[in-house]
Amino acid sequence: MIKTLQVSLGERSYPIYIGTDLLSQTALLSQHIQNKEVCIVSNSTVSPLYLEQLLATLSNDFHCETVVLPDGEQYKNLTELNKIFDQLLHSRFSRQVTLIALGGGVIGDMTGFAAACYQRGVPFIQIPTTLLSQVDSSVGGKTAVNHALGKNMLGAFYQPQCVIADTNTLNTLDDRQLSSGLAEVIKYGLINDLGFFEWLEQNIEGLRARDADLLAEAIERSCQDKADIVAEDEREQGVRALLNLGHTFGHAIETGMGYGEVLHGEAIAIGMMMAADLSQRLGWLTDLDVKRMERLFIAAGLPVSAPTEMNAEQFMSLMAVDKKVQDGTIRLVLLKKIGQAVMSHDYDATKLAETLILFNRD
Amino acid sequence: MIKTLQVSLGERSYPIYIGTDLLSQTALLSQHIQNKEVCIVSNSTVSPLYLEQLLATLSNDFHCETVVLPDGEQYKNLTELNKIFDQLLHSRFSRQVTLIALGGGVIGDMTGFAAACYQRGVPFIQIPTTLLSQVDSSVGGKTAVNHALGKNMLGAFYQPQCVIADTNTLNTLDDRQLSSGLAEVIKYGLINDLGFFEWLEQNIEGLRARDADLLAEAIERSCQDKADIVAEDEREQGVRALLNLGHTFGHAIETGMGYGEVLHGEAIAIGMMMAADLSQRLGWLTDLDVKRMERLFIAAGLPVSAPTEMNAEQFMSLMAVDKKVQDGTIRLVLLKKIGQAVMSHDYDATKLAETLILFNRD
Repeated sequence: MIKTLQVSLGERSYPIYIGTDLLSQTALLSQHIQNKEVCIVSNSTVSPLYLEQLLATLSNDFHCETVVLPDGEQYKNLTELNKIFDQLLHSRFSRQVTLIALGGGVIGDMTGFAAACYQRGVPFIQIPTTLLSQVDSSVGGKTAVNHALGKNMLGAFYQPQCVIADTNTLNTLDDRQLSSGLAEVIKYGLINDLGFFEWLEQNIEGLRARDADLLAEAIERSCQDKADIVAEDEREQGVRALLNLGHTFGHAIETGMGYGEVLHGEAIAIGMMMAADLSQRLGWLTDLDVKRMERLFIAAGLPVSAPTEMNAEQFMSLMAVDKKVQDGTIRLVLLKKIGQAVMSHDYDATKLAETLILFNRD
Repeated sequence: MIKTLQVSLGERSYPIYIGTDLLSQTALLSQHIQNKEVCIVSNSTVSPLYLEQLLATLSNDFHCETVVLPDGEQYKNLTELNKIFDQLLHSRFSRQVTLIALGGGVIGDMTGFAAACYQRGVPFIQIPTTLLSQVDSSVGGKTAVNHALGKNMLGAFYQPQCVIADTNTLNTLDDRQLSSGLAEVIKYGLINDLGFFEWLEQNIEGLRARDADLLAEAIERSCQDKADIVAEDEREQGVRALLNLGHTFGHAIETGMGYGEVLHGEAIAIGMMMAADLSQRLGWLTDLDVKRMERLFIAAGLPVSAPTEMNAEQFMSLMAVDKKVQDGTIRLVLLKKIGQAVMSHDYDATKLAETLILFNRD
């Protein structure tokens, strides 16, 4: 069975398909490829698992080339991005080429950005193969690469033709990656969906055990929550910023520890706990709320303490280059309560300092 | 006196200012800078001439940083682009920064592309200092860098906040650069403005002698012609492609000879003559038309013969990766007559081969 959601963005609207064995469905894919040229971008971990299957689905109808990049956040940079351009130009692919991202969030972000830039824009398709990319990064059109001084600093808002979330691909995901994806799932509950947060508390064991129905439901609900927000605010002028809950702290951790050391979901789990800590200091969350969040993250297999390697000064310095900085103030997504996130720039700065200094470290 | 034209693109509309001593006008510039952060991007040729003046105009009101890149088409690549990002991040510039391009087409294209990518998009201002960039590349929102295998292959459609064409800056332009700019000016006449072509025939001597009034009129008329076309077709789905007259041949020359060897205007002058040659073979242009074009290009100080270093095979190979290729066919802008360009893909391929083989070489 295929579930179909729609991201409503006028002429840039597109469907998200969620289901099993979607990678083999030629008709489903073909309808979103406008011409004969296809370039599949994948990584060294995913390509041995799924590239052959995808090629079998497409190669009768399309001229397919592939680019296989090394796996990991540390390769999400301009140098590796250029390898996609090298391949496209060596293959003499025209402005009619469709790029397909087959992999996790890194591959999706890089392929999307490559599609945004190649010949000033060609279509692309997201085939996310990790839970994290299925519930978050493949939806909404944020594409980017990292810079040594900041995560996702170079990129574009660029929407795909469709997103194909084949839940079969989650069977080969290692446990740590699955947990990393659950961090983004929990995020939706925290932002504005208390009912989903409670559902997750009930079902976290089943999700970690990869119950297919539970996973499909978690993906659908996450994508629906995200699609609603993106439809309202594509370019993050307002409400979309709430999706960055935990991300300003989390990006600092990813950059500070070195890209690839801490998984994105792990970093934002810690980041959400830091946001909770600050929200509690501001008198918004209760101790009970914070404990409840911590329990769910731990049950999801996620870290809840900041790395001992990083001190408060390093956090401040890295957070100061985040994209959410405005007029010198770090705008943070904080929690009024579980299920109600707010964007705040007029918090008490000493409270932030307290969080950065006192928040528990491993 | 300041002439103001408008590029009409809905919420992305912006003015083009043309006049003398505009670089000193604080109010003119300030109204287009939304916040306090400014990063000026220039090159090693232009910055000694005009950077101090621009800084004097802005530094009372804004926090200005500068990036000075090496001068030349051979530096229009991802590596140099990254230097802009390095500076922006070292300066901790936020999403509120405004980039200002102070230089010719290369600086404008690179700064615009950097603005399109930095934090997924920040505002930028074009201050073109060459005739070529004042009449063409600064207007219309095409931004890009080159790839070793093709010119302008990586980029974005991204509109500036305004274009400021200070004709004073043309006084320091060397003759070869001035002629290069005249190639794009003549292009507008050839495409759809026979009256302008005739005006240019009358005034080419005065333009080369840098008569200020004539230059201002040529810039205004060129910008108006371009603004009209861009307003009709921002993303080059149709009529905008006519602005590429001479460019498919010309890009092949630029790439084939090595970026920077032949100036852009020189390459497209040759390209326009090659397009004319093919148009004549197709029975569209008369021998008289072609001679008339050749006379004007020569009077403008431009080359009209293809480089002997390049053979027909090399032309074909380089033209095959051009952005105008569709379904394997090279779509070319050709001339039905002087003042009437058309996009064609169903020309006789043997005629193109004849042009590539027989067109006169230096």
